[in-house]
Amino acid sequence: MNRLRVGFIGAGRISDLHAIEYLRNPRAELVAVCDVSPEIAQRQAARWGVPGKRVFTDFRELLACEEIDLVEILLPHHLHAPVALAAIRAGKHVSLQKPMTLSVREADELIAAARAAKVQLRVFENALFYPPVQRARSLVDAGAIGEPLSIRIKCNKGDSATAWAVPEAARAWRQDPAQAGGGPLTFDDGHHKFALAWHFMGMAEQVHAWIERREIEPGVVLDAPALISWKFAGGRYGSLEVVYSPKLRVVTEHYAQHDPVEITGSKGVLWITRGHGRLFDQPPVVLYADGEVRGFSDMAAGWESSFVEATRHHIDTLLDGGAPVLTGEQGREILRFCLAAQRSAREGRAVHVEEER
Amino acid sequence: MNRLRVGFIGAGRISDLHAIEYLRNPRAELVAVCDVSPEIAQRQAARWGVPGKRVFTDFRELLACEEIDLVEILLPHHLHAPVALAAIRAGKHVSLQKPMTLSVREADELIAAARAAKVQLRVFENALFYPPVQRARSLVDAGAIGEPLSIRIKCNKGDSATAWAVPEAARAWRQDPAQAGGGPLTFDDGHHKFALAWHFMGMAEQVHAWIERREIEPGVVLDAPALISWKFAGGRYGSLEVVYSPKLRVVTEHYAQHDPVEITGSKGVLWITRGHGRLFDQPPVVLYADGEVRGFSDMAAGWESSFVEATRHHIDTLLDGGAPVLTGEQGREILRFCLAAQRSAREGRAVHVEEER
Amino acid sequence: MNRLRVGFIGAGRISDLHAIEYLRNPRAELVAVCDVSPEIAQRQAARWGVPGKRVFTDFRELLACEEIDLVEILLPHHLHAPVALAAIRAGKHVSLQKPMTLSVREADELIAAARAAKVQLRVFENALFYPPVQRARSLVDAGAIGEPLSIRIKCNKGDSATAWAVPEAARAWRQDPAQAGGGPLTFDDGHHKFALAWHFMGMAEQVHAWIERREIEPGVVLDAPALISWKFAGGRYGSLEVVYSPKLRVVTEHYAQHDPVEITGSKGVLWITRGHGRLFDQPPVVLYADGEVRGFSDMAAGWESSFVEATRHHIDTLLDGGAPVLTGEQGREILRFCLAAQRSAREGRAVHVEEER
Amino acid sequence: MNRLRVGFIGAGRISDLHAIEYLRNPRAELVAVCDVSPEIAQRQAARWGVPGKRVFTDFRELLACEEIDLVEILLPHHLHAPVALAAIRAGKHVSLQKPMTLSVREADELIAAARAAKVQLRVFENALFYPPVQRARSLVDAGAIGEPLSIRIKCNKGDSATAWAVPEAARAWRQDPAQAGGGPLTFDDGHHKFALAWHFMGMAEQVHAWIERREIEPGVVLDAPALISWKFAGGRYGSLEVVYSPKLRVVTEHYAQHDPVEITGSKGVLWITRGHGRLFDQPPVVLYADGEVRGFSDMAAGWESSFVEATRHHIDTLLDGGAPVLTGEQGREILRFCLAAQRSAREGRAVHVEEER
Repeated sequence: MNRLRVGFIGAGRISDLHAIEYLRNPRAELVAVCDVSPEIAQRQAARWGVPGKRVFTDFRELLACEEIDLVEILLPHHLHAPVALAAIRAGKHVSLQKPMTLSVREADELIAAARAAKVQLRVFENALFYPPVQRARSLVDAGAIGEPLSIRIKCNKGDSATAWAVPEAARAWRQDPAQAGGGPLTFDDGHHKFALAWHFMGMAEQVHAWIERREIEPGVVLDAPALISWKFAGGRYGSLEVVYSPKLRVVTEHYAQHDPVEITGSKGVLWITRGHGRLFDQPPVVLYADGEVRGFSDMAAGWESSFVEATRHHIDTLLDGGAPVLTGEQGREILRFCLAAQRSAREGRAVHVEEER
Repeated sequence: MNRLRVGFIGAGRISDLHAIEYLRNPRAELVAVCDVSPEIAQRQAARWGVPGKRVFTDFRELLACEEIDLVEILLPHHLHAPVALAAIRAGKHVSLQKPMTLSVREADELIAAARAAKVQLRVFENALFYPPVQRARSLVDAGAIGEPLSIRIKCNKGDSATAWAVPEAARAWRQDPAQAGGGPLTFDDGHHKFALAWHFMGMAEQVHAWIERREIEPGVVLDAPALISWKFAGGRYGSLEVVYSPKLRVVTEHYAQHDPVEITGSKGVLWITRGHGRLFDQPPVVLYADGEVRGFSDMAAGWESSFVEATRHHIDTLLDGGAPVLTGEQGREILRFCLAAQRSAREGRAVHVEEER
Repeated sequence: MNRLRVGFIGAGRISDLHAIEYLRNPRAELVAVCDVSPEIAQRQAARWGVPGKRVFTDFRELLACEEIDLVEILLPHHLHAPVALAAIRAGKHVSLQKPMTLSVREADELIAAARAAKVQLRVFENALFYPPVQRARSLVDAGAIGEPLSIRIKCNKGDSATAWAVPEAARAWRQDPAQAGGGPLTFDDGHHKFALAWHFMGMAEQVHAWIERREIEPGVVLDAPALISWKFAGGRYGSLEVVYSPKLRVVTEHYAQHDPVEITGSKGVLWITRGHGRLFDQPPVVLYADGEVRGFSDMAAGWESSFVEATRHHIDTLLDGGAPVLTGEQGREILRFCLAAQRSAREGRAVHVEEER
Repeated sequence: MNRLRVGFIGAGRISDLHAIEYLRNPRAELVAVCDVSPEIAQRQAARWGVPGKRVFTDFRELLACEEIDLVEILLPHHLHAPVALAAIRAGKHVSLQKPMTLSVREADELIAAARAAKVQLRVFENALFYPPVQRARSLVDAGAIGEPLSIRIKCNKGDSATAWAVPEAARAWRQDPAQAGGGPLTFDDGHHKFALAWHFMGMAEQVHAWIERREIEPGVVLDAPALISWKFAGGRYGSLEVVYSPKLRVVTEHYAQHDPVEITGSKGVLWITRGHGRLFDQPPVVLYADGEVRGFSDMAAGWESSFVEATRHHIDTLLDGGAPVLTGEQGREILRFCLAAQRSAREGRAVHVEEER
């Protein structure tokens, strides 16, 4: 295989960001699209140059196409498990949106099925490919802050005149616990944050979470504010603060969220100053150590660049070999992290992540 | 009374910062000094111009002086209750170092005694008088960030070539739980942080704390790292992250600690960027709201200025009337806050502050 | 007239930025294109949706079209005078690239001709419409820095991997003094800087200039470094520093130039931190006054936005009335400013701008 | 000689800053003081611990003391030449305030006399020892900005509640051209700026200057605004902008002046963000190169530190050998730089520095 043929199952709001790299990378081709809405399927197919014969409303038809190597699954969370399983059984490689499933048991099934079918199962976690995150990681790996001792992540939802419009449909399923598996901030967006914590600090041992639920407009409930604390191996700590500031102006072309990260090490401190959006202009990565503050401005810092890099990485691993980030097993670990926080909030106690299995 | 006559009980390391304002304010006079070490008592008396006849090694002798209106108690924590009680009973106004006592019961006794003796009992919490904190508070009160929704405080102990030397004696008693009542970072310095949280967010309802203990050099145990989470009334949150970064260079003339504060509101975010020390040069108070970032540089920002302002405030309330900050009752509230965190760490569960009584 | 019909004469590199607003503003329509290169004319016409019947290689044919209200003249400098004159005589409104002509006498002719023909002559100086410049101006007008006392402008040409490719043709005529009238930095780009100086400080009385000429690659001569000083009415001053830093990394999608502006007033200082490009992330407008530094991040700051705003302004003045910025008379003033600098460098003495007539 | 014995001739305002290092450096001793005002001489002698027998009002008496190795001459400019000459002839090493003399001829005389007398003649230019300047220089020397191409210096006089009080006497002689030799900003303070330009860029070839004179309060005339341009060898440029902003708030404990420096190189730009004072908190040295901005905060940045370092350097060269900065010859070069600017402003033309001889 020297050119990857990709089919999208689900062509909603987020699919535009997934498509960017497939459309311009000469080693890949977007060859099929499926969406339950025929209008959406056709509109996106036209935009992406997908031939009409491979525009579907039933994902089974797409899976039946021989000309597809990889399916990108961009569906509401509760559909991840059944559709990914069908794709695996159809012999397709799978790129699965996060969180991979709603339960650890389902995750186990997918992992086992992929192993049996000898296909690659990848959980798509773009946050790890956001260029400021990658720069931060290489600085940390190079010892710029010494040994990482703690991490602090913020998810500050605000407002923005330039944010993209989220279609009603995309919002609706996220409000239904049966479909979403958890709130839009602490579970869905939370996956990004848990993945970042895992990426820089390793697996959490314990989680303590307080999660409120607030109706911010009729019918729209947010799982905010929330405060989630982690204890990592070796007595290191981290936290995720989720706040909704209805009148906070955020600069973004995507979600109106400011999600900075602070990592404190034995000799320095590192900040990733933006994510989905930013508050004001400052370098996306800032580092303090040894009496010197350094700001790194030489990288793409739009949120879309995280999708571009995550997709390119995936194309490369499929064509050149190597494990993707996240493997199914890694995605399962992040999922346990997420589920433990939900359980902690529900049960009012610190939870050991190993309880999630 | 138009000139306040002050006696110091305890003349160790911190007494220099307490003395600054008394020495230059024309409405006050430092007239007596007591320390168990006659060398220290005499050295400080000489430096401050206190006449030899009022240099003591037994605090009871100092309390017997008629020419003293106010005693400033600067002793190890376990001595706060008995010495303050004696001072109150001697008819002196009392300025008591934080935390006021080791238990709520002792705090109650002091409050009742002061009321009975008709003297003023003030808990000295300089952090609230640190000019950047005062500026932050007036910005918040003016609505600059909208409604305050969360607070995040960090206590990042590092290293500094210019920090002051802490005498062995000052360090020793802080290592003994019976004298200190809790660790140097989460209980002693923690009082500053709990007071800040209370100042900006009100009383906490619940506290969850993880506190490690690490021997950082032979015989020196730090209560770090630690992660303390608060739930305030109305479902608002806060956290205190305590980290020890042995090679983090901090600019300070006092303690080598970087202790920034972040307050997130419904329309803006405010940062106090320094406290005992700073990492790099940036305005001590920074505010973001409405697409504009503002840095406030027009204030004293050395940690000593918090002592100066706290002392001047106290002189003014004693001479001109008005309640001091902190009153005994307020000091008792902060103490409960502190004790609840210690209990949470000890018992491995979130603690309701009302359990502390 | 309630919809402006526009024809472009010249469809080279810069025409893309001029087209943006015409293509999306419902009050205007791009109806004709002319370029001496038929390939370029046709390619741009196709991109912009201009019908084939109004794609020309001879500007006289375009001027003969009745369906055109306004011509946008985007030609090498030496062609500005003759083509604008022909357009005016054909009864078209004219938007003329800066510098409007190569001599004051030609500028006078155009102004007189436009007056006689009762058409509008506008000199297109986008720098004045760059949103950070507009924000700076409204801050200055509101008294934020007190009375403006001096201005300092820098033109620091560097390097950028993301800059746009400048076609050989666009570079060639700029190297020929007979076509360009002056160097690419001090005369062509210089017009932006002189216009900014005029915008904030008024007309210069004297100019002193040193301008070097350096061959930076075979056949490419830059008029840098240069140092141009101005004396404005009332004994106020300004300067333009032009430097070529071959290895300076500039973030841009257009020209690899960092061109910050500093305006000092009687009570504050204001900085516009970027223009064609930026060095690192900081707010595009920064203001210091009264112990407070303010950064303004809530505006578009890509260089293309200056073209968009300048074009919209023009559409509005033509449809709704009002004088454009720059009028012919204003453009003539800036031109004198430019010519005086060239003369100063040539003659080795400070030049009074009134010598240019 | 292993301990340097120093006598001060002149004990006015600035002498406090000169004394700091002599008082604490074990290799030096301040042994004599002279001032025409006996009150000042005695007050400073008392403060510095100088014995009464070596407190003088006539400098000849001080020069007659055998126990003095070095005289520090802190007098109005017109007295530099005669007093330094007398000191040299008395066999003393001389540390002479800048500018060394009022004319090149006088400078030549001093240099020749020192050579003949085999004593060291040093011109005290503290600006070169200001720690941010030293850091900037070592960054430039290490290639951090590539080849230095231009320098821009600003002298923005403002206002400050914390500035030191300048005694009337210190102000008066600076207003008299016969004593001062030039204005307080472009000649006296200007020496610092010319020295910085020389330090980073080498000797200027040509100077063009506009210098206004403004009476800012009755009897006080400032030589501002001014704009001074330099052409250095190899076609490199620099400028000094002098502005008086009466309501600009400057943070300082000395003169209320903001005097930042910008050096542009072939691959980077470096800023020294403060001098006598600062506007807001930012690192004293900031560097941009290669997509990264670096702020250096690990140095003393109060203006007094420039005096401390300049004095220590001098003690070391006298005791350990080596040429001082500035030698008499170097001081003479800076003086020519200064004089050329004055001549340019007077004669209304660019002046070649070699005209000054």
